[in-house]
Amino acid sequence: MLHDLFTPSVQHALDLAGIFVFAISGALLAVRKNFDVFGMAVLAEITALGGGLLRDLIIGAVPPAAFTDLGYFSMPLVATALVFFLHPQVERIQGAVNVFDAAGLGLFCVTGTTKAYEFGLGLTASAALGLATAVGGGVLRDVLANEVPSLLRWDRDLYAVPAIVGAAMVALCIRFDALNGLTSGFAVLTAFVLRLLAMRFHWRAPRAWNRRSAAAEEPSPS
Amino acid sequence: MLHDLFTPSVQHALDLAGIFVFAISGALLAVRKNFDVFGMAVLAEITALGGGLLRDLIIGAVPPAAFTDLGYFSMPLVATALVFFLHPQVERIQGAVNVFDAAGLGLFCVTGTTKAYEFGLGLTASAALGLATAVGGGVLRDVLANEVPSLLRWDRDLYAVPAIVGAAMVALCIRFDALNGLTSGFAVLTAFVLRLLAMRFHWRAPRAWNRRSAAAEEPSPS
Amino acid sequence: MLHDLFTPSVQHALDLAGIFVFAISGALLAVRKNFDVFGMAVLAEITALGGGLLRDLIIGAVPPAAFTDLGYFSMPLVATALVFFLHPQVERIQGAVNVFDAAGLGLFCVTGTTKAYEFGLGLTASAALGLATAVGGGVLRDVLANEVPSLLRWDRDLYAVPAIVGAAMVALCIRFDALNGLTSGFAVLTAFVLRLLAMRFHWRAPRAWNRRSAAAEEPSPS
Repeated sequence: MLHDLFTPSVQHALDLAGIFVFAISGALLAVRKNFDVFGMAVLAEITALGGGLLRDLIIGAVPPAAFTDLGYFSMPLVATALVFFLHPQVERIQGAVNVFDAAGLGLFCVTGTTKAYEFGLGLTASAALGLATAVGGGVLRDVLANEVPSLLRWDRDLYAVPAIVGAAMVALCIRFDALNGLTSGFAVLTAFVLRLLAMRFHWRAPRAWNRRSAAAEEPSPS
Repeated sequence: MLHDLFTPSVQHALDLAGIFVFAISGALLAVRKNFDVFGMAVLAEITALGGGLLRDLIIGAVPPAAFTDLGYFSMPLVATALVFFLHPQVERIQGAVNVFDAAGLGLFCVTGTTKAYEFGLGLTASAALGLATAVGGGVLRDVLANEVPSLLRWDRDLYAVPAIVGAAMVALCIRFDALNGLTSGFAVLTAFVLRLLAMRFHWRAPRAWNRRSAAAEEPSPS
Repeated sequence: MLHDLFTPSVQHALDLAGIFVFAISGALLAVRKNFDVFGMAVLAEITALGGGLLRDLIIGAVPPAAFTDLGYFSMPLVATALVFFLHPQVERIQGAVNVFDAAGLGLFCVTGTTKAYEFGLGLTASAALGLATAVGGGVLRDVLANEVPSLLRWDRDLYAVPAIVGAAMVALCIRFDALNGLTSGFAVLTAFVLRLLAMRFHWRAPRAWNRRSAAAEEPSPS
């Protein structure tokens, strides 16, 4: 059954679902930042497609999938319309959105790593690009919204680590010639569950040792 | 006469004019942000060439035109010099600058869409890249200046919509095999006039329905 | 002896050293911004490799060197570990870090210009990309940390100018067919010394003439 997970059509459906939930997070941030409907659409598109776009530019897969698959391009517009008309309701189910976002994270770190390897990159570089695929869109979203990227902040639940684990699992599977639908699915699932656990138990990563307390008062370097 | 608009040399002159006015807007923002003369030049270059650079990277047209045409590269330096010595005067003719900026917007959404299509992208993707060509430089300008992109803000007059209309007109012309100098020129003109009207009558795009008033007080997500 | 400077293995060692010190500056900013250890690693990687990545995407050298050379990728992680455990000590030797950063600046403006020229760009474009290689990582660092790029601020000691001089010297050497290990080394040295002098004597670039004093009070355009 997990093997079926990666037939082309199911893969595509999963991609679209991942793109959709990432786009929701972009559109919601746009509403909180008081952007208009076009700002919502731009932020939704970039959040959803930005990670894959970066990956495709870096591996030389041009034009990137974001510009060749009309479904990829349309999904964020659907998400924008939904948030535009129903954003209080969407906000209220933020918990559900977070679960889907975790699923997108797991899916994209695995497919990103696989695609980078197929384009000839080494295992470490492929895993790094898998991570970039999964988290890149969210970073671009926050940069465009003029916020400190959520990914980098210490007071957010672990986000990069689940994606790193998923990408590393794929790289290990490739190394030992064991990548198939089953192991890929297991990597997706591991990243997904790790992210859910991180949210549930507020797992956080440590900051530098011996941070002088003064630094907390002056976050911007002078 | 409109047909002449797109002979190579006239096209090039128009490109240079568009680059010049976009560069002016970058240099002016740099002055307002208190940057030095090199910061002005960097912001002018990126505002003027950033949109086309993004487009060229995405369609695989490397090295991008911004790096192969010395005129493209020099124009922003001329604009920087002008603003450096005369910025109060340039500020005073902000209205004229806005008119030229509108012309650049119209021109670049059309040429961006056409170039993307020539490189094999589909019609929707080509129009999206036409939009990115026209507005991308301004977004990069605002991101580098650490501002919320003007494009995304609800309290600014419509900027994306005229470019979307222009790009969509080109895509429709291509679809019905009717793209020529005349129809291209008409698309440029439509986007240009729409932008002028948007500025004149302060047309704005709606924000999400039912925004809770609380959201206005806390624009940054917590 | 300067000729030896550019044998492949020495060149590689110098590249790694430059990457390392740039990564230190990224990791230190991450600590000041209160990021967690993964944020530190991300910022270190992007500061160290971002400039070269931009250059490689623009000249079409994909996949970029940052993703094909494991040493390039690992160095920032070593820098992150060092700053993580020892950041007060690293802060205390900020002066030494700045000297190495100046060396990285000199090195990368020269190698960036040379690589761009080898990929077929013109002399001016090559020099511009040499500058982008040297300063691009720092700009990306500041954008991700949600700060106004240090490069653009008037109240910082000259940073772009030494790199511009170094890149221009390389372009001139190519023009007059005089590029070799000796002249390359001299260009590196010139940029390095200029940056040291700029820090020592607080050389700064001028801002626009006749800035109205009002502009100083309202740095953000309204």
